Amino acid sequence: MVQFVGVSEIRRIVAQVGIDTVLTRMVDYLEADFRRWDRFERIPRLASHSPGGVIELMPTQDDALYSFKYVNGHPYNFERGLQTVVAIGLMAEVETGYPVFLSEMTILTALRTAAMSALAAKHLARPDAKTMAIIGLGAQSEFQAAAFRAVLGVETLRVYDVDSAATAKFVRNMAGRGVRVIACEEPGSAVMGADIVTTVTADKVQATILSDNMVGAGVHLNAVGGDCPGKTELQKDILSRASVFVELTEQTRIEGEIQQMPADFPVTELWQVIRGEAPGRTRRDEITLFDSVGFAVEDFAALRLLRDLATETGQYETLDLITSPADPRDLFGLIAPAAAAAAQAA
Amino acid sequence: MVQFVGVSEIRRIVAQVGIDTVLTRMVDYLEADFRRWDRFERIPRLASHSPGGVIELMPTQDDALYSFKYVNGHPYNFERGLQTVVAIGLMAEVETGYPVFLSEMTILTALRTAAMSALAAKHLARPDAKTMAIIGLGAQSEFQAAAFRAVLGVETLRVYDVDSAATAKFVRNMAGRGVRVIACEEPGSAVMGADIVTTVTADKVQATILSDNMVGAGVHLNAVGGDCPGKTELQKDILSRASVFVELTEQTRIEGEIQQMPADFPVTELWQVIRGEAPGRTRRDEITLFDSVGFAVEDFAALRLLRDLATETGQYETLDLITSPADPRDLFGLIAPAAAAAAQAA
Repeated sequence: MVQFVGVSEIRRIVAQVGIDTVLTRMVDYLEADFRRWDRFERIPRLASHSPGGVIELMPTQDDALYSFKYVNGHPYNFERGLQTVVAIGLMAEVETGYPVFLSEMTILTALRTAAMSALAAKHLARPDAKTMAIIGLGAQSEFQAAAFRAVLGVETLRVYDVDSAATAKFVRNMAGRGVRVIACEEPGSAVMGADIVTTVTADKVQATILSDNMVGAGVHLNAVGGDCPGKTELQKDILSRASVFVELTEQTRIEGEIQQMPADFPVTELWQVIRGEAPGRTRRDEITLFDSVGFAVEDFAALRLLRDLATETGQYETLDLITSPADPRDLFGLIAPAAAAAAQAA
Repeated sequence: MVQFVGVSEIRRIVAQVGIDTVLTRMVDYLEADFRRWDRFERIPRLASHSPGGVIELMPTQDDALYSFKYVNGHPYNFERGLQTVVAIGLMAEVETGYPVFLSEMTILTALRTAAMSALAAKHLARPDAKTMAIIGLGAQSEFQAAAFRAVLGVETLRVYDVDSAATAKFVRNMAGRGVRVIACEEPGSAVMGADIVTTVTADKVQATILSDNMVGAGVHLNAVGGDCPGKTELQKDILSRASVFVELTEQTRIEGEIQQMPADFPVTELWQVIRGEAPGRTRRDEITLFDSVGFAVEDFAALRLLRDLATETGQYETLDLITSPADPRDLFGLIAPAAAAAAQAA
């Protein structure tokens, strides 16, 4: 039987375990898998494009487990009252090819993206960073806020969105969570005095959410929103001044902020920093930038954690997705038993 | 909510509708989708290899629906009492990217592979063909027998397997199904007088199940077992004498019987025959060969049928795989409601 975690189960798991613990453990699982980066199969995602959006399959595997995520991206869904991104994940045993775990991944991806940002910042931001600016208060914003509070102890959030309804939603959701939220009238005032700046807007264009003169020395930039071809948030000049860290170089050159830069623009892959094989931040006044686009290994770590949490809490169902005939060659007997046929014929 | 058909539901659907009706309708759905072949996205499958086997993702889409199949191939599973191939399928709306249907696909693939063979034979075999030989009596064999009986009216089956237990299973499963089964001692006697010869053995090697002198004039060959690199069943000389029909040329040149032939060996794609744009059988004494390897469009048609059958019979469950927050931007509110946080803080 295949373990199944749907929307109601993941909600119960987070309620039972607590979102801070989920995010902190997610950072641990991500860090463990980034440490063994070379053990993972890294193949390009498989994208099916249509006029309204894209559907992607993102697989990876290590020696023991295989995972893939189904994820769409449909910008016009918002106008229909639907989410622009939904996702489903599956984990299987490499040795037998049998699926063992199936789950919703819309909420899980939101948690893993925020935990991934916090993991990068743990290695790249100044250790005493306590104030974060967030530009863009959509579906991902509170997850970022919660992860940076739980993992890095960020205390103050300076936030901005073009839509005041989004700001109101953010303020409401973060009430009583141990952070001070300062709603700002423009991006320029939001970033003022911030140690970390998170950009996570939704426009599908080359926007300039941050211009060069807004970024001061020593800041860590967490660029989450620029994540597909034609969609960026940072002015090019910022990239030239910053030390840039990525997940998988060839993917980020196509999808990330550095799509604006020449093909030989120097970057460091984050797994090298986590393994101590490349320097992260080297000076207090250095500008560091995590150019986040998301990668299959992160979904693998997230599914691994959710499977463990499901088993620990007992919050899962089972699906009979896999046939198990007594004789593996007798699949036909499962759906058209011989006795029944003989009886019909009689 | 996503419609879900597991093993127990597909068993109930086949029991309720009848396997003959399922196979006949499957042929209709396949034929309809092959007629609009150019409307489908045709991209290579994404394969993850490991020492014990392979896991593949096979997607396709038309203007309205997207589908993919997860399928493994693990030859050593048989020794563990497990199936060598299991599969899961998903269907989504292209317009929104939202999944709408999830199902087991191990049984469904067995049904679609047999229906695909019957569809090809409907266009390629002599119209008066009533006797079929089957070499290889594994999991797929009874499905082939049932499809050829239901769709083409095949009355006599001359069958052979190296393992007498497999033969006994086949004879038992086909009892009372309106066909005469003649168990043969060797492949040579099985093919004698057969109008159609189906080869569907499981050896992962270049085997010679059929040699050239065993294939007489006017026969239709349904080569199902040669379906991956290094795995073939027919002696090369047979291919030179036959008119060869394939699903997707570039895939079959790698995976099918024609992997033994030069890259310019002439073949006809089956959709062209079905649309009347290329000839099928042109003479009674012609040897026709369907070099079957399976393609994503066939899984699409199979999922489309199973979804319709599930809706018609009411045999499905629903899974809460997709979040639906009242405000699409308020994903966080779903798992960490603001009121609860405020109450905790108070």
